[in-house]
Amino acid sequence: MIKIAIDAMGGDNAPSEIIKGCVEALKEEKCTVQLVLVGKEDVIKKELDKYKVDKSRIEIQDAKDIITMEDSFSAVRTKRDSSMSVGLHLVRDEKVKGIISAGNSGALVAGATSVVGRLRGIKRPVIAPLMPTKKGYSLLVDGGANVDAKPEFLYQFAKIGTVYMQECLHVKNPVVGLVNIGTEEEKGNQLTKEAYKLIKEDKNINFMGNLEAREIPSGVADIVVCDAFVGNVILKFMEGFGNWVFSMMKEEFTRSVKTKIAALLMKSGLKNIKSKFYYNDKGGAPILGLKGLVVKIHGNSKSEEVKGAILQVERFIKTDLVKKISMKFEEEK
Amino acid sequence: MIKIAIDAMGGDNAPSEIIKGCVEALKEEKCTVQLVLVGKEDVIKKELDKYKVDKSRIEIQDAKDIITMEDSFSAVRTKRDSSMSVGLHLVRDEKVKGIISAGNSGALVAGATSVVGRLRGIKRPVIAPLMPTKKGYSLLVDGGANVDAKPEFLYQFAKIGTVYMQECLHVKNPVVGLVNIGTEEEKGNQLTKEAYKLIKEDKNINFMGNLEAREIPSGVADIVVCDAFVGNVILKFMEGFGNWVFSMMKEEFTRSVKTKIAALLMKSGLKNIKSKFYYNDKGGAPILGLKGLVVKIHGNSKSEEVKGAILQVERFIKTDLVKKISMKFEEEK
Repeated sequence: MIKIAIDAMGGDNAPSEIIKGCVEALKEEKCTVQLVLVGKEDVIKKELDKYKVDKSRIEIQDAKDIITMEDSFSAVRTKRDSSMSVGLHLVRDEKVKGIISAGNSGALVAGATSVVGRLRGIKRPVIAPLMPTKKGYSLLVDGGANVDAKPEFLYQFAKIGTVYMQECLHVKNPVVGLVNIGTEEEKGNQLTKEAYKLIKEDKNINFMGNLEAREIPSGVADIVVCDAFVGNVILKFMEGFGNWVFSMMKEEFTRSVKTKIAALLMKSGLKNIKSKFYYNDKGGAPILGLKGLVVKIHGNSKSEEVKGAILQVERFIKTDLVKKISMKFEEEK
Repeated sequence: MIKIAIDAMGGDNAPSEIIKGCVEALKEEKCTVQLVLVGKEDVIKKELDKYKVDKSRIEIQDAKDIITMEDSFSAVRTKRDSSMSVGLHLVRDEKVKGIISAGNSGALVAGATSVVGRLRGIKRPVIAPLMPTKKGYSLLVDGGANVDAKPEFLYQFAKIGTVYMQECLHVKNPVVGLVNIGTEEEKGNQLTKEAYKLIKEDKNINFMGNLEAREIPSGVADIVVCDAFVGNVILKFMEGFGNWVFSMMKEEFTRSVKTKIAALLMKSGLKNIKSKFYYNDKGGAPILGLKGLVVKIHGNSKSEEVKGAILQVERFIKTDLVKKISMKFEEEK
């Protein structure tokens, strides 16, 4: 049986929503995993008592401390008995196949890198979230790990992303685009100009060249490569801009009796549009390039996201994603 | 009388839309400027013959060459008889008070910097477009000039932006936000961490601190500071994402008879939302920090944008924007 650890104390809605999500996941027929909830044992037990759940599929791993959003990126080292730290050690010691955390991103990336460790040949692990596009989903690498990136990092992200899209989303020859300010090869800043050359040289990457941010939502690139600063701006701007558009729509649809009728007539259409953006079941973002599976979910995740992440991690493990990435970097030595 | 030069040959829709925009601007009652159309004289004359226009308010400055989108950023130097180069020299020689161009951005920024020249104390000129927000408009600095920025550049952009918002948009104590991946002072990449300190030290800047991209659309910052790579990503992503949302809305509104009725009932509401994003009359983006006024409009600008830019440049000149920026940097020596 596959065992997955859950950081029960990480995130804005921990532990209640985290544990609720675990219970919901275990109720899914397709979910066959065993969960290890990491955190304060008494708190977790009390939460679990709220639900009817098959206790044989849940273990509790006690951890007395909590890493908060205010803690520094080195918190996994300084707070050894935190739920995040204990959980990452379970991954390192192969007690579990992977871990999910809604906690402090900086601490999770740094902690995972030092505790779980990088795969051979990998310079930097990368956070790889899926983002919605006209065609479906594109993988954004880097979604949050390396704000001061080097050209070789971006090149590796393109490689890692290619493995992910092939193995997990079954895209045969995934297209890689490098986020840039223009389409021509010579455009960009120092980072992208050099990264362009590196990616272009690798014949195993289906490189479309530079990708202007205008084209990202069209889904023309399956893999969107950029440093984590730019990736963060894209993800958060999309969120803020989307919220604004929907708030304007709400305002216009509630303006008069006439527009309220329109809202009723458009109910399912609006739901379709919204479901494109609020894609909570997409299951978080894996930190790829590590020796184990570490998945970051949004700090304000609710039970639905936790459940989605558990189901997704199960798929990652069945796909043997970590091994596939490892092989990609081994074979090219 | 105020004279403004127009690069009649720059941009995807030149010369027809450029000249149409000039004609439309001159018909506006509030517009009192004299226009100098720079480009191939015969072509311009032929275009002008299509309209009834007060010829006494239009001069033509012949320029035989054209800088295309494919030309390098040094094209103003290599193509001395291009409309852009000739126009920029008119600004330098004070034959006109400013110039508007829809041509190659890289060439325009580099050409303006070398021909018109930087104001004393300014390290780098900056492209400063307005972007729509929930509250109205925010100024984005840098919208496209410096992709490899240094902390001091970002600090100067905050200063220049403050002058612009005070003088041109009459915002009394404009709020400056530094685009970053988190709100805490220690967050960010090397560039933003150092820029943060510089901006914070200047007591004449109303600095809110770091601004997550999620908050940009809320309008919480009047001035959004970032390097041109990030600025370009924000502007273009907004464009692409907006287009996608509207295309989805169109699809949903045309799905059935029911939704088509909803579309009719929502007609003015949808127009309200759209008008927020397609803000063609906002008049382009000035390149600030130069000894003269150079305004960049979108490469695919139509007559409406050209007209808007002319009206805006007239306001800039009446405000004496260049002098105000110059004074700001002089007084603090």
